[in-house]
Amino acid sequence: MTIADINLKINPERFRKDFNVLSQIGADSQNGISRPAFSPAHQEARNWFRARILDAGLQFKTDEAGNQSGFLECGLNNAPTFLLGSHLDSVIHGGKYDGALGVIAGLEILRRVKETGLALPFNLEVIDFTDEEGTLVSFLGSFAFTGKLTRKQLQNPRGGKEALEVGLSKAGLTMENLLKARRDMQTIAGYLELHIEQGPLLEQNNAQIGIVDRISGIAFYRLSYLGKAEHAGTASMQNRRDAALGASAFTLAAREIILEQFPDCYSNVGYVKYQPGLFNVVPEKATLTLEFRSADKKEFRRIHTEMINKSKSIAKKFNLGIEIEFLGEREPVELNATFRKEIHNGAQLLNLKSMPITSRAGHDAQTMASFVPTGLIFIHSVKGISHSPEEFTPWEDCINGANVLLQTVLRLSNKYTDFDEKK
Amino acid sequence: MTIADINLKINPERFRKDFNVLSQIGADSQNGISRPAFSPAHQEARNWFRARILDAGLQFKTDEAGNQSGFLECGLNNAPTFLLGSHLDSVIHGGKYDGALGVIAGLEILRRVKETGLALPFNLEVIDFTDEEGTLVSFLGSFAFTGKLTRKQLQNPRGGKEALEVGLSKAGLTMENLLKARRDMQTIAGYLELHIEQGPLLEQNNAQIGIVDRISGIAFYRLSYLGKAEHAGTASMQNRRDAALGASAFTLAAREIILEQFPDCYSNVGYVKYQPGLFNVVPEKATLTLEFRSADKKEFRRIHTEMINKSKSIAKKFNLGIEIEFLGEREPVELNATFRKEIHNGAQLLNLKSMPITSRAGHDAQTMASFVPTGLIFIHSVKGISHSPEEFTPWEDCINGANVLLQTVLRLSNKYTDFDEKK
Repeated sequence: MTIADINLKINPERFRKDFNVLSQIGADSQNGISRPAFSPAHQEARNWFRARILDAGLQFKTDEAGNQSGFLECGLNNAPTFLLGSHLDSVIHGGKYDGALGVIAGLEILRRVKETGLALPFNLEVIDFTDEEGTLVSFLGSFAFTGKLTRKQLQNPRGGKEALEVGLSKAGLTMENLLKARRDMQTIAGYLELHIEQGPLLEQNNAQIGIVDRISGIAFYRLSYLGKAEHAGTASMQNRRDAALGASAFTLAAREIILEQFPDCYSNVGYVKYQPGLFNVVPEKATLTLEFRSADKKEFRRIHTEMINKSKSIAKKFNLGIEIEFLGEREPVELNATFRKEIHNGAQLLNLKSMPITSRAGHDAQTMASFVPTGLIFIHSVKGISHSPEEFTPWEDCINGANVLLQTVLRLSNKYTDFDEKK
Repeated sequence: MTIADINLKINPERFRKDFNVLSQIGADSQNGISRPAFSPAHQEARNWFRARILDAGLQFKTDEAGNQSGFLECGLNNAPTFLLGSHLDSVIHGGKYDGALGVIAGLEILRRVKETGLALPFNLEVIDFTDEEGTLVSFLGSFAFTGKLTRKQLQNPRGGKEALEVGLSKAGLTMENLLKARRDMQTIAGYLELHIEQGPLLEQNNAQIGIVDRISGIAFYRLSYLGKAEHAGTASMQNRRDAALGASAFTLAAREIILEQFPDCYSNVGYVKYQPGLFNVVPEKATLTLEFRSADKKEFRRIHTEMINKSKSIAKKFNLGIEIEFLGEREPVELNATFRKEIHNGAQLLNLKSMPITSRAGHDAQTMASFVPTGLIFIHSVKGISHSPEEFTPWEDCINGANVLLQTVLRLSNKYTDFDEKK
């Protein structure tokens, strides 16, 4: 009898109890969850997770980036570690399922394997990655864990340097030590994450399990057009150098580039600011943010080029200067084929309808996929709503997702020597 | 001998002494002047002005809008009043000349007429209009004085309602009483203002005296395009309702309207804000400010129509809603022809080169011109710089301006029965 033959399932009552307790931590009065990284609510959730790990008789691990893990040794010498996980942090006024579900499903699987006494060819570890939502630094935990985090990124963190330092110190961490959180990727057999879809495809296709094949790449820019501040009632309309014209023309052009050349891709200009920002002064500076997404590596690179070229030609047209700040990117990734196959087989065994899905949102799995064989399992989010108190997944789907996660671990453990090579 | 034949001139030493003392009130360390309405520095300037009026043996008057005047009776029964003036308030970190010069030139003329014992056919009054710069309410003083101020305007004042209430209370004034400041316009014979040009035309034409023929009208709008906030990585590029597209298209279109249809006019989109204003959320609301200016009444009305129509057609094109807030306007005005002629004659008598100028900036004279015969005299501003510590006018030009102001009053007093009809 191979391991995967046994019809092992999670303990749904224990799983649900954990979920219900966790859903109270950081709950606000309008049914939302607010657990931004290192907030008091997030710290409480982290402490609760640590207690659950210890209660389950698992080893507790933590690192210099605040990632917390439960660890179950397989007993073999120099065995690699198979990682399950997601994140306990949330956006402000978000939902109960995003991230949290994947962490407690992983915890439940470690407990179930431990109490069943299953002998796996790898250690199991369930990890809560720090700040997936990017309150302080996008994907801080998984970036630090994989060694993708750079000193340069920490110079201009998304939430500001002071907020990062204050947040880290609350958790007893420091900026200097963050880069030491890097784990040796040779010791990681693979990474598997369960997450809600945050999109409508499973619902529209009446399917229960999404097998993520690719995760879109995403790039971030800040563009500033530079003109000259003048009195709006006296400076010649023909000759004034109005930075607002550059920002406006680019905002329209970015959309045209995507619609005409990259119909499967997405872009957004979500923020703009004019300086000095007064009724009667020609804007001397107009700053906008640009993000774009593609699941195809070649298209992703071509969008970079098209956007930059267009931003410059618009500056020229309106006699403006331009500052282009590249704020970072995550490359599009393809997820491991063996993992995808075994997620499919696991779902089939459980009589669940599955379908491939391309993820447009970022996940810790995206970071991991550049380093180790990685899989990502989606379950239904009602109406695709996420980052909102209305985020909802029927409990049956949560149990199904956790069981597919377990099945996939068991199936992969059977063919452990294979999937590493097929990455 | 008619009055205008006498070669009366102002007392330049007394005029300069006043200017120098006033230039210290609200002076900051970088040579700028900060006397926003009802600030401590503005109050100090107002107290100083009151003391100068009383020292000169003039009557002191004030009203419910905080306008302060020096008054010189002519001794005739039921004589009308000829008004001189400008404003003592300034923008933050502005210059010494804007407004202040016109007030002290008017004061000097009242003193000179009084000490000479000249018998004029009208009373003379020098007025400091409250808040010309619009820290609290644009043209608060002259609007209240002429009865142009409305309750509606006070509901949403430019600087916020609380700031207005606090400012008024510092000067012992109240919102409720503001509308009582209205003076009977039948009692005002005319209004004459001396001001720096705040533009480069006199300098470019090597002229000393600008005879303002028209003052541009200006209109203010706030436009908000209304779309739908969605996840920028999943909402269809074709179908999303992106408010930023409306704001961007309108910003470009407003300029095209002016360039193509109204080449003598001006417009500006100086401020914009997207909500929620995040990298990864499609903007659901994009708010921009629009102002435009024209010195021609018909064109001014046509611009209103063109801008509104264009803003609506853009909303339709991008499947957006639109909110149009009209925030107010000042109509273009033409200044009194008799006043213009006598400014010209006065300048000629003093051997000064004069030229007609259309004012693109607003002045209290603009408010007054809708109600009484009005004239506006410009003197040189070096390089046209204003609202800046670099604002500068050679002292000789200030004296020339004050003497032309005096000459014009004397000349108009000779033909008092005429100019009222020619308005």
